[in-house]
Amino acid sequence: MQGNFTYHNPTRLHFGEEAMRHLADELKNFGSVVMLSYGGGSIKRNGIYDAVVDALRSAGKTVVDDAGVMPNPTYGKVLEGCARVRDNHVDLILAVGGGSTIDYAKAVSASAWCDGDPWQKYWVAQQSPSCPTVPVGAVLTMVGTGSEMNGGSVITNRQVTEREGGERIVTGLKRGKVFGPELYPKFTILNPRFTMTVPQYQMVAGFFDIMSHLMEQYFAGSADCTTDYLIEGLMRSLVHSSRIAARNPQDYEARANIMWTATWALNTLLKMGKGGDWEVHQIGHAIGLVTDATHGMTLASVSLPYYRHVMHDGLHQFARFARNVWDVRPDGKTDVQVAEEGLACLEAWMNELGLVMHSRELGVNEANLQQVADAVLILPVGYRTLTRDEVVQILRESL
Amino acid sequence: MQGNFTYHNPTRLHFGEEAMRHLADELKNFGSVVMLSYGGGSIKRNGIYDAVVDALRSAGKTVVDDAGVMPNPTYGKVLEGCARVRDNHVDLILAVGGGSTIDYAKAVSASAWCDGDPWQKYWVAQQSPSCPTVPVGAVLTMVGTGSEMNGGSVITNRQVTEREGGERIVTGLKRGKVFGPELYPKFTILNPRFTMTVPQYQMVAGFFDIMSHLMEQYFAGSADCTTDYLIEGLMRSLVHSSRIAARNPQDYEARANIMWTATWALNTLLKMGKGGDWEVHQIGHAIGLVTDATHGMTLASVSLPYYRHVMHDGLHQFARFARNVWDVRPDGKTDVQVAEEGLACLEAWMNELGLVMHSRELGVNEANLQQVADAVLILPVGYRTLTRDEVVQILRESL
Repeated sequence: MQGNFTYHNPTRLHFGEEAMRHLADELKNFGSVVMLSYGGGSIKRNGIYDAVVDALRSAGKTVVDDAGVMPNPTYGKVLEGCARVRDNHVDLILAVGGGSTIDYAKAVSASAWCDGDPWQKYWVAQQSPSCPTVPVGAVLTMVGTGSEMNGGSVITNRQVTEREGGERIVTGLKRGKVFGPELYPKFTILNPRFTMTVPQYQMVAGFFDIMSHLMEQYFAGSADCTTDYLIEGLMRSLVHSSRIAARNPQDYEARANIMWTATWALNTLLKMGKGGDWEVHQIGHAIGLVTDATHGMTLASVSLPYYRHVMHDGLHQFARFARNVWDVRPDGKTDVQVAEEGLACLEAWMNELGLVMHSRELGVNEANLQQVADAVLILPVGYRTLTRDEVVQILRESL
Repeated sequence: MQGNFTYHNPTRLHFGEEAMRHLADELKNFGSVVMLSYGGGSIKRNGIYDAVVDALRSAGKTVVDDAGVMPNPTYGKVLEGCARVRDNHVDLILAVGGGSTIDYAKAVSASAWCDGDPWQKYWVAQQSPSCPTVPVGAVLTMVGTGSEMNGGSVITNRQVTEREGGERIVTGLKRGKVFGPELYPKFTILNPRFTMTVPQYQMVAGFFDIMSHLMEQYFAGSADCTTDYLIEGLMRSLVHSSRIAARNPQDYEARANIMWTATWALNTLLKMGKGGDWEVHQIGHAIGLVTDATHGMTLASVSLPYYRHVMHDGLHQFARFARNVWDVRPDGKTDVQVAEEGLACLEAWMNELGLVMHSRELGVNEANLQQVADAVLILPVGYRTLTRDEVVQILRESL
């Protein structure tokens, strides 16, 4: 554990098949006006919406409906939500959905009463809120982002222009802001059964998002650090359970383990005492900005080209990854061979899950590849700081 | 992850060589009267006492001195502390020391304004506080118990009677109470350098206390559970770093990793979604009651006899322990052989640290063995519920 840091995570998690029973008690801690934020109609079809509304009505709350949060929530939608919060003097934003919905709820929380321009203040200048914020609670229905127990809020601010001849140019930013504990959900309901109605494509994309969070925190630094041992444990659990869940999405034990792993993969514990990389997320965000593809799949499509590109810069850690996560036996092999074998194991697991292994399938092509590259934020951390040329090279290899 | 549970851990941890700089900010959150609870003179010799008192004075606090917390804090000392809290209307109890001191501070916090008999209410009937409690903060100087980020409070209530002929009979109870998040330290200062002045004997005893917390949560249940993978990671980190620290206690990296591991080994994360065992701690508490021996050494002296006794009841997990923590290769071996090899690795590591491997060295003998056995609380959890005869057998094997 290196450097100096403060760990504080006050989110209260209610986990299990009966977790919703705690919602009534949680609601007692907040005022009477609750904005219910959610995405499309899926929670209406699977009964979760009705269960939540029943709990809100029983608690005597006034419900402000806030539907239509999209998978990559836009800044325009955030501003709509802010107006709704102000107009109704909302006391609690209850996000029901996946990470996108909770990311959105935090964005609205910090922006509704913001004294400046929220986009500039938070997602560009990365400042902290200096205004009152609105408490956020969550009912999680899809795993992956970890938003249920952290301050992360990824928002898309996109401009699309059509040139003569119909060419579509996407510019703008898809950017993350990490708020402090005051913006973490006050509580989150984690019922693994709620995640079982997510379609297979979104489910496995979420699994890879978790793996990417783990890898992006693992592949940085050279010091011996307890965090790396924790990450290896979470990776092993994820690999084991995801194989079961990909074959049988109704396996409660596997889905429960994955839900718990997802939360701890990105609730700030693993960033304590060591650096991170996060370049794969930056490339993934750029692909998402241009194509609106599912987040986890954007990460899957570029991870192998990226890690093979930086492997030699962090060889010790890649060899350790192979040994401790994939049980690669090092006997008589060079570190390079061991590390390559580890990445081959990762690739085999990704294929087994049915992940998107080529960004072309998500809509990246030679025509828009430079637009994607332009949108990539290059971070000076991890084992290697990429040049723009290297970003292009990795994107091209990902096609 | 099995069953339904709530995870909530609001303690704010400040970690690193500069962690004390946060004390001034933390003190702003509390009233003006601070009771400073600590043990003997060691914190006066190593400068920690002066640093804390300086911070308190700079913050304008009135300091109530509360020295003399013993390694196994007694209920009598708790009652003294309660009177001091009431007499001075204390606003914050600042515990500076190891787990014993923090355990004591929580006991005083819950008992000072208690409307009933605290011993009966908390340590016997295991009830929750129904009275106002006093906030607790901590500066940790010795690792092991995890008390810095949980609600645990182990207190000794001992009666010693001398029979004719000088025979000394120790009866009474050494019992743990686990309070809820309202009794967790509000903040803890974790500076690994503060742990470096602890004598080698206490240092390695603390290391084994950590290992015992990990094992007692690991050796229970048969379901696949993410928690077990986390525990394996923490065990691997502990084994690695403790070997370095035992040879060179001044190795900051090792001591820092161990400090972090200790906190996460017993801050409630690892008990989520699975059962535990805790019989080794019960036997250790009984030895401590009768002999006043160092807690971690009481655990060390009985662990191997205990685990060898219950190994066949949880064979799958013991074989997994061997493979995943000690890298025992299972090829061509039976599960029993693999499991036994794992426990042999544990034994070798314990010898390497210089732990007390025989309870006789702590003062247990044939004369007081029945007194110890009488004081053991037998828990109906873990892989096997012991009979009293089995407790005696294990104690005898531990001699």
